[in-house]
Amino acid sequence: MTKRIITVAREYGSGGRIIAKKLAESLGVPFYDRELIQLAARRSGLAEDFIQETEERKVQSFFGGMGFGVQGLPMADQVFLAESEVIKQVAGEGPCVIVGRCADYVLRRDFDCLKVFIHAPLEYRVRRVQEEYHVQAKNIQDFVLKQDKNRATYYDYFTTGHWGRCQSYDLSVSSALGVDTVVDLIRTLAEKQ
Amino acid sequence: MTKRIITVAREYGSGGRIIAKKLAESLGVPFYDRELIQLAARRSGLAEDFIQETEERKVQSFFGGMGFGVQGLPMADQVFLAESEVIKQVAGEGPCVIVGRCADYVLRRDFDCLKVFIHAPLEYRVRRVQEEYHVQAKNIQDFVLKQDKNRATYYDYFTTGHWGRCQSYDLSVSSALGVDTVVDLIRTLAEKQ
Repeated sequence: MTKRIITVAREYGSGGRIIAKKLAESLGVPFYDRELIQLAARRSGLAEDFIQETEERKVQSFFGGMGFGVQGLPMADQVFLAESEVIKQVAGEGPCVIVGRCADYVLRRDFDCLKVFIHAPLEYRVRRVQEEYHVQAKNIQDFVLKQDKNRATYYDYFTTGHWGRCQSYDLSVSSALGVDTVVDLIRTLAEKQ
Repeated sequence: MTKRIITVAREYGSGGRIIAKKLAESLGVPFYDRELIQLAARRSGLAEDFIQETEERKVQSFFGGMGFGVQGLPMADQVFLAESEVIKQVAGEGPCVIVGRCADYVLRRDFDCLKVFIHAPLEYRVRRVQEEYHVQAKNIQDFVLKQDKNRATYYDYFTTGHWGRCQSYDLSVSSALGVDTVVDLIRTLAEKQ
């Protein structure tokens, strides 16, 4: 165990990214979300767009149509490996907040992590997705649930844990309690450890 | 919405009961766990021992062998109804901490609840069950997992939620972070709401 890292997994539309960003600012430590894509691209030689598309790919095509890359591994696995290397690298540089990408699992052996999951009631998330993300979809509720399903499939495929089950995290909290309340709660806990 | 009630569900052996008791002491509010059995017995005419046995019954016999009571309802349902009435009664008397018995679900419509779930890694719970509860069982790990299964079956049967899923609670936290840390965390959140 070497450093204090906070990993933040989150339901789609819960505002987990904003909470993680505010948390990092409040603690004065680096924040990593999409920044990891850029770093993974540099390290692996894969294009940023390709990494992003692989992350966002639907469950069906994620398993069925990825093809194999130059290392003989399915492309999704190559992206996961590239991102995992970058996650270990940034965690090795000191305390930070990392969003998504199975970081809790990637760092489980060598780093002292506080594993957080942010969720919220479906109606709360649907409202946020419409008002703040301006997503256009025939059925927003189905769209939100599909994003969750993709995240769960990705996490459960690459780890031994279960996405969204309390037992996979140290702390799971509803963002409907209030963004600042949740930021304070996680910071208080992080500072006590 | 009328009162601030904290409901605490917990994995077997996690120390959730101790956390809830300390939390109630710290907030200076009543604590209800086994006390509910006594109150439900007085209210329903059912014997305390019978209520306790019904709560602890194994999953198989819970559904298969409960028989029907004087009100024409399966006995498990009668016990649930008696306890639900008592939970609503004590919640109506003011802020308090209530352990288990689907209190979060029972109070969902009429009370302002902070819904908490306490969990911990299996090895942590196995050690606590051996050292603190002095449970004798051939396989302690299986024993612990069976208690969880009973609790999940009970909760999922009587409610529309899922026991142990983040989304069923406002806050889920691992007691392995430390009993006092978790008590402080919940108290801080309860006082902010």
